[in-house]
Amino acid sequence: MTESTAAARTDQDVDAHAQEELARLRGSIDNIDAAIVHMLAERFKCTQEVGRLKAEFKLPPADPAREKEQIERLRLLAENARLDPAFAEKFLNFIIAEVIRHHERIAGE
Amino acid sequence: MTESTAAARTDQDVDAHAQEELARLRGSIDNIDAAIVHMLAERFKCTQEVGRLKAEFKLPPADPAREKEQIERLRLLAENARLDPAFAEKFLNFIIAEVIRHHERIAGE
Repeated sequence: MTESTAAARTDQDVDAHAQEELARLRGSIDNIDAAIVHMLAERFKCTQEVGRLKAEFKLPPADPAREKEQIERLRLLAENARLDPAFAEKFLNFIIAEVIRHHERIAGE
Repeated sequence: MTESTAAARTDQDVDAHAQEELARLRGSIDNIDAAIVHMLAERFKCTQEVGRLKAEFKLPPADPAREKEQIERLRLLAENARLDPAFAEKFLNFIIAEVIRHHERIAGE
């Protein structure tokens, strides 16, 4: 066995280990994404009920005081979970934008 | 009791019921958001490990084939959960953008 073959083999082993690790991590990411998608589906069921309620009782679609509370709470939860609070806030705004889109659709029906 | 008082009372009851329902739904939304934040924290732990692995083995930060697979899988999961597949895709892109930002930061360290 020449030195270069041994080196090539070592590289391959390292590479195989890295690929294995990558596959393991991606499996976890896929599981987490499935969980989040189902959580989001459940969340939109709730916000659609909220939307119907708001339309029925002529409540305004947006509620700045509630949103402020949600953002503060989520930033705190994120910090405790070592997630970037700025990202958690961006995430909530992303979801709220979609919810308002739904509410406007319901109100327009 | 005059008729107008009775009407006012009924309105108040309806309103109290709506407020109660709203509070119940918001409680569920807050629980779901807490679950999602913790799921996201766990997801970023995985992608940070992926980032370190990619930096160590000089793998490219983005992987279009993997992303295509993730999007297709998530759209299918969303459909089954009665969540808008277009929203699920938008959501994944939102997360992936953040992950790439993390990976670039790790590669630059």
